[in-house]
Parts: sequence; C-alpha cells; structure tokens
Amino acid sequence: MTQDHDPADGIAFVDGAYVPLALASVPLIDRGFVRSDATYDVVHVWQGRFFRLDNHIERFHASMQGLHMSLPHSKADIAGILTECVRRSGLRDAYVQMTCTRGVPPRGTRDPRLCRNRFYAFAQPFVWIANEEQRREGLSMIVSSVQRIQPEAVDPRIKNFHWLDLTMGIFEAYENDAVVAVLTDRAGNVTEGAGFNVFAVRDGRLATPDRGVFEGMTRRTVIEMAREVGIGCEVRDVPADELRAADEIFITSTAGGIMPVTVLDGRIHGNGKPGPLTRRIHDLYWDRQHAAGLFTEIDYG
Amino acid sequence: MTQDHDPADGIAFVDGAYVPLALASVPLIDRGFVRSDATYDVVHVWQGRFFRLDNHIERFHASMQGLHMSLPHSKADIAGILTECVRRSGLRDAYVQMTCTRGVPPRGTRDPRLCRNRFYAFAQPFVWIANEEQRREGLSMIVSSVQRIQPEAVDPRIKNFHWLDLTMGIFEAYENDAVVAVLTDRAGNVTEGAGFNVFAVRDGRLATPDRGVFEGMTRRTVIEMAREVGIGCEVRDVPADELRAADEIFITSTAGGIMPVTVLDGRIHGNGKPGPLTRRIHDLYWDRQHAAGLFTEIDYG
Repeated sequence: MTQDHDPADGIAFVDGAYVPLALASVPLIDRGFVRSDATYDVVHVWQGRFFRLDNHIERFHASMQGLHMSLPHSKADIAGILTECVRRSGLRDAYVQMTCTRGVPPRGTRDPRLCRNRFYAFAQPFVWIANEEQRREGLSMIVSSVQRIQPEAVDPRIKNFHWLDLTMGIFEAYENDAVVAVLTDRAGNVTEGAGFNVFAVRDGRLATPDRGVFEGMTRRTVIEMAREVGIGCEVRDVPADELRAADEIFITSTAGGIMPVTVLDGRIHGNGKPGPLTRRIHDLYWDRQHAAGLFTEIDYG
Repeated sequence: MTQDHDPADGIAFVDGAYVPLALASVPLIDRGFVRSDATYDVVHVWQGRFFRLDNHIERFHASMQGLHMSLPHSKADIAGILTECVRRSGLRDAYVQMTCTRGVPPRGTRDPRLCRNRFYAFAQPFVWIANEEQRREGLSMIVSSVQRIQPEAVDPRIKNFHWLDLTMGIFEAYENDAVVAVLTDRAGNVTEGAGFNVFAVRDGRLATPDRGVFEGMTRRTVIEMAREVGIGCEVRDVPADELRAADEIFITSTAGGIMPVTVLDGRIHGNGKPGPLTRRIHDLYWDRQHAAGLFTEIDYG
C-alpha cells in the first residue's frame, strides 16, 4: 500500500491485487473502455453491513451471461473480494462496485469471443446523488428532452455504462437549476435518470415504470416493502404527464436510498415538502438495512 | 521504453508521456470508463501517410464541443502527438486513435462539469474489419435483430463508445456464420454496423443512410468521389428491404476502406462476386490516399 494514499479514499481489486483506488486502472485497449463492452453492479455498505449483497452478485452474474461473459470467480469469491476491499478501506459506509469487461482482444483480431474477460472491483466512500439538505428538503428534477436509449438497442436490465444520454440529461438539469433529470422513452413515458429509478404517488398508491429501465435494487426493495405494508404499487408505463400530476414524487438509488422530489421542471410540486408516503417509504428503507436475511456483516478484523 | 515491448505493437500517449500501448491505461474511476463519458476519432496511416488528418481532428474537436469537453491541446498539438505516436511505432500502416474522456470527478461529487477532461492517443498496426480473402471475395453480412441506439438518445455524429448494440450484433453475425452485422432503426431502415457505414448500389446509383449513423470519413470520401466522377449518390433513408434488393452492397470504414458484401442474411447476393461499381469505388478510394491535400506525410526521422 502506497504511503500517500489513505485507504479510506478507496481500495480496488485489479489483476489479483488490492491497490489504492486512485492507482487502479483499466488497459486503454480493453474493450470495456474502447467499446464500453462491460457490465457492472453496485452494492452499498451501511454501518458496516452490505445490503442485499447476494442479490447484487446474483444480478451481476445474470448481466455477464446476457453479454456472453464469464469469470473464473465464483459468487463466493466475488463476495470475498468485495468484502476485502471494504475491510481494507475501513469504510463503514461505502459504495462498492464490481465490473466485468470483455478484455483485450488478441493481436490482429476484433473478435469479442477471443477476449479473456476481466474483473475489477472497488470500495469507495458512500456516494449520495443529492446532498443532505436536498435529501431532507427535496430535490429539483427536470423531465429531460433527451430520450433514454431504447431497450431494443441495449437491454437496460443488463447494468451498463451507456450513460451519454443520462449525462446529457445531467447537463440539462444543471442548465435549468435542477439537480437531477429523468429521461423519457419516445412515447413520452418516464424511464429513469442517472443511477436512479422514479416513483409517482397518487391517492396513496405508488407507480413506477416497468419498461426501458434498470430494475434497481432500491426500486425492488420499495416494491417489496409496499406489498408487505399494504401500500398499492403498480409497475407499468408512467407517462410524464402522470408524473407531473402526482401527489408526491421520489427517486430511488443504491447511491442515496429514497429521495423526495419537490420541484419538477422548475415548478414547486405539491406543497413543496416531502410527502407523507415518501417519508414513510424512506424510513422503512433505512430500517430495512438491518432486516434479517438482507444484510451481511463485515468483519473489519 | 520497456525492453519487452516492440514499438511496432503500438505506442500510446497518456498523461504527457509516450508508452508502449500494452502498458497504457485509464483510471478505473475516469467517467470515460465508468460512464462511457468520452468521445474519440480514428485516422489511419497508409504507406507512411495520414489520410485526412485535419478532417479527423476537426471532427474530434466538434465531438468534444458536443459533449461540453475541452482540452488544453490545440489542433496542431494533437496532430503533433498523433504523428509522434506513429513515428515512435515505426508503423507505415497504422490505426491511430485520439480520445477525450470526461476525467475523474473531484472527491464527493458526481458533477461532470468539475472534471478535468483527459486526452489519450495511440497508434497500433492497421486494423482490418475483414481479412484479405473476405475483402477480395466479399463479406457475409446479416441485418441484425438488434436496433441501433436512436439519435434522440445519443447523437451518433458524436463518435462514441456506446457499442453494446453493435457488439451484440457481432455475436449474432457469428452465430449465423456471418462476419458483420448491420443494425436497423425502429422503422426498419438500415443504420450502420460496428465501425462501418453501408452503401447499396442499384441501377448504377449509390444510396447510404442519412439518419442515426456516424458520418464516417470513408463514407464522406465515397460521397465526394461519386460526385466527382458522376456516379449518383443519395443520402437518405435506406429500408432494409431496399438493401436486400440492391445490385451490390459495400461497407466503408477507416478500418479497411471499401469492402464488398456478397452474402446477406445467409443468401448469396447478386452473382456472389464483388460488383463492378464496388470495385471501381474501392480502387478510387485507395488511389485517393495519395491525392494532394488529403494526406500528411510522416517524417519517421
């Protein structure tokens, strides 16, 4: 470990070794970079516990299969590597990423089948999509003019780095004094934003898009919790106009949990305060970090 | 320069230094990797001469502007760096890439505006989409079932690494004993394939798609040459069925020039031989590598 690097800034696992995150790198000609030929997953650690670690690794494996990739690491190996990244970082709250890239093609070919797939992982300090005040008071969101990449081109259920549409949405949000942008499909239905899913609340019921979105773990957790406590939750097309007419809006992400949206397209939404159902889901979610069967305690040694 | 690396395997420019391509890397947390937040361009060197170097650098600059990126390097600086990569490699025929990534966000933020954009370049041996026999006898192509990412999501004129749709097309091609795949838009019009544009020939006239495609330099060169020698060339929607009914089909790429397609969707196309107009365009293209004003001689010293 290099002296200049504080482990709490992040630890990565690359080529079989644990290194400071700032020194970790990807070959310039890995197709994972030059063709964004890669899949990944992100799990968080809260108060020294992974949340739904097995579910994330399960999904990561399914994503690799979807891209015809495989690794020599078992699911248990991956859990061990991720745990070791966190343990070495010492971080009690962390954002933990696992990535599989296609790898470097052998000389003189561009056949992706001939690449040895590569595994990268890292733990870094917990990432929040919004700052503390924004999470308490509510975020300002826009419905972006950029469309989300259509599922007939790239299957959004395979978590991927194709984010230029989402990134252009972030720029558009900033230009309009907003913090986040949600993108629509060509029919004008809401999809997702940069790293988050969206829920609309109307008459005490939730609705969230079913198509053209990544099926986020926080989204899944909200759907499960709603069912358990008897809140209606529909997974279906959500037109942007329905979002505009909602009683409450919130977004969900591994990078921040449940976050209220109180300004949409520059107009104060509802009474401008996080709504009661959003607050309830928020509290249920954070309580759930300690639910039996969902967390994995980290032994920091 | 490390002893173990032959310069002819490739030379890269990263962080202000020239290094063997095999050792060049990108930070794991550069948004250019983890968000594919990057643009690039590829220029080729043939017989010691860059082809349309200024046009490529001009387009690279336009792409950066489109993504709100900038570099401290002038266009002349970039030309100098690319030349030095080739010179150090000693390669007379080379594939030369310039890339700009968003960079690494400062700690605790995900604001892309706060990143210092990063420049990467490399020269490697000339890349051919198809092998010598395929280029002479004709390629086997499929019309993929995967759609190309729509232009309303990601502007295809800004050259980008969002290739998962194209990569899945490559897998589909291989599964069907083909070499390349062309993707369509949702209306069933032809767009492009992995690194190439497509032309259909009918009754002595060319047609190539105008929408949802990267405007490749070889494509541009074909359009210009056709105009000069009096071959009609239409830039417009090309339905997949029109491609199937074409007299001749060829694809164009910086990685290979003009390449005939003689099998489409498993069926022999036309008489199964490269057609006369394809051969004429092919020869015009390679002659043009030495046209005044289009090439830049490299001084290998």
